[in-house]
Amino acid sequence: MRLVRTISDARARRSEQRTAARSVAFVPTMGYLHEGHLSLVRRARQLGDTVWVSIFVNPTQFGPDEDLDRYPRDLERDLSLLEQEGVTTVFVPSNAEMYPDEPVVGIGFSGLERLLCGEDRPTHFAGVGLVVGKLFNIVEPDVAVFGQKDYQQSLLIRRLAADLNFPVAIEVSPTVREPDGLAMSSRNAMLSDEEREAAPAIYRALCAGRNAVLAGERDSTTICRIIHDVIAAEPVLTPQYVHCVDAHNLAENPTISGEVVLAVAARAGTTRLIDNILVSPS
Amino acid sequence: MRLVRTISDARARRSEQRTAARSVAFVPTMGYLHEGHLSLVRRARQLGDTVWVSIFVNPTQFGPDEDLDRYPRDLERDLSLLEQEGVTTVFVPSNAEMYPDEPVVGIGFSGLERLLCGEDRPTHFAGVGLVVGKLFNIVEPDVAVFGQKDYQQSLLIRRLAADLNFPVAIEVSPTVREPDGLAMSSRNAMLSDEEREAAPAIYRALCAGRNAVLAGERDSTTICRIIHDVIAAEPVLTPQYVHCVDAHNLAENPTISGEVVLAVAARAGTTRLIDNILVSPS
Repeated sequence: MRLVRTISDARARRSEQRTAARSVAFVPTMGYLHEGHLSLVRRARQLGDTVWVSIFVNPTQFGPDEDLDRYPRDLERDLSLLEQEGVTTVFVPSNAEMYPDEPVVGIGFSGLERLLCGEDRPTHFAGVGLVVGKLFNIVEPDVAVFGQKDYQQSLLIRRLAADLNFPVAIEVSPTVREPDGLAMSSRNAMLSDEEREAAPAIYRALCAGRNAVLAGERDSTTICRIIHDVIAAEPVLTPQYVHCVDAHNLAENPTISGEVVLAVAARAGTTRLIDNILVSPS
Repeated sequence: MRLVRTISDARARRSEQRTAARSVAFVPTMGYLHEGHLSLVRRARQLGDTVWVSIFVNPTQFGPDEDLDRYPRDLERDLSLLEQEGVTTVFVPSNAEMYPDEPVVGIGFSGLERLLCGEDRPTHFAGVGLVVGKLFNIVEPDVAVFGQKDYQQSLLIRRLAADLNFPVAIEVSPTVREPDGLAMSSRNAMLSDEEREAAPAIYRALCAGRNAVLAGERDSTTICRIIHDVIAAEPVLTPQYVHCVDAHNLAENPTISGEVVLAVAARAGTTRLIDNILVSPS
C-alpha cells in the first residue's frame, strides 16, 4: 500500500497505473474508519483492479459552528485497516495541498442542496461537491463508491458526475449497521454511553415508518409522525428533521406513489446523527 | 480529421490517443470560425500531439433575451477551415447529447461572474463554467487554449481548472484583430456596413486608455472616461460598460497600481461587441 500526500504524487501514481492499464475504484472518506467504510472498500475491490482511498476532513463542508475541530481522527489506525483490506493507494492531503487559495468556484445543486441535511447545513453540499470534484480530477477513478447512509450526498454526487460528464461511474453501497441497528458513523465515537444506548431508536423509527408504508399508509405527514414519535420518545434524542421524500428528486409529496426515502437527522447531545431507508409502496 | 458527434465516440477516440501516448490540445468554440479561432488552433498545434476542436453553441450561456437563435452557424465552412489547419478531431455534439436532462449542477465564481460582462449577462458565466467543465471531462485534454478577447472568461476558466484541479493546463492566446483594429468575433458578421465602419472605435478607445496609463494617469475613473468618450463619439455605438480593473481579481480600485485590464462592451445596433487590453503602469 502506498501513502500519497501530494497532488503531484497522486497524479504520478495514477499515471503509472494507467500505463499498466489498471482500473481504479475510489472511496473518498474523512477517515476514522469503521465497518461502513470498509464495506465500501470491499465493494471497490470488486469493481477495480486497484483501490484508492482518500482520507481528508474537508473543511469546506463544515459550517462555522459545526464540529470540524472535534471530528475524530486516527490516521495510524486507518492506514492499518486499509492495509488489511488490500488497498493500493491512500491519498492523505493536507488542507494547504487541497486549498492553496480560498476557492472562487462554488458548486450548486439548484436548491436540492438546501433540502434535508441542507436545512441545517446550508453550505454543506457545496463543500461536498467542491471536494468530490477536486478528488475526481486528482484521482481520476473509473468508479467511485459512496455509502447510502449519506443518501442526499449520493444523489447529488450522481448529479455532479452526470451533469459535468465526469468519466466515472458512481456506485452506492448499502448502509452497514451495528447489531442493534445503529448506522455506522465516525460520529458514533462522540456519543456518551447513554446517548449510544438511545441512538438505535433512529433506525427503529425508520423501520416503523417503512412498516407503515408496507401496510398501506400513503400519507407522508402520517408516515413522518410515526417516525418522529419513536425518536422523540427517547429523552436524549432530539429529532432535527424527519422526511418522506421522492427517492429521485427529494420532492415532498403529500401522498406517496413511487419509491421514497425516509430520512432522519437527530441530535444526541451535541452529536448529529443521520440515517435513512428506501421503501417502495406495494 | 475525424468528426465526432457523440460523447461515447469522443471518449473512444480519446482512449485510442491515450493508448498511443498522444497528448491533446483542445480549443472549445461556438463555431463560425474566424482568424481568431484559427490562431488558437495554431497555438494548440504547438502545444499538443493532436488537436481537438469543439463546435457547440452552448444554450446555457445565453440569457432568455439574448442572440442564441441568431448566433451565426456554418459547420461546413468551419470543418473545411479546421481540416486545412491540421486538426485531428472535431467534436460537434447536439444539444440533446450535451444536455439530456435539465442540469441540476450550477457553477458559481463567488461574484466574479456578475462583474463586467456579468452585469448585463448574469447567468452567462455559470453556463460557460458548466459547458467547459463538461467538455474538459469529455475530451480530457492536456492543455486547453482560450482567447484573451474573452478576458473575464479566461480568468474564470483558470479558476475553474485550479479550484477543481482539472488535470489540464490553461493557455490564453492574444486577441487577433482586423487591420483596422477591430477584434475578431463571430458576431462581427452581424454588423451592418455602417456599424462595421464604426466598430474599430472600440479598439481606438482602449488604446487611448492605455496611452493615458502609460503617460502616467492612475485615476481609474479618468481612464474609463477617456475610453468611454472615444466610443460614445460614434453615433452607432452605445457603450455598455467601460472598466479599468485589476487583471487578477477584477477589483475596481480608484487608483491603479499593478496590471489592469481595460475592458469594454458596446452595442452596435442589436449586436454586442467586447474587447479588452492589458496594461501595466510604468
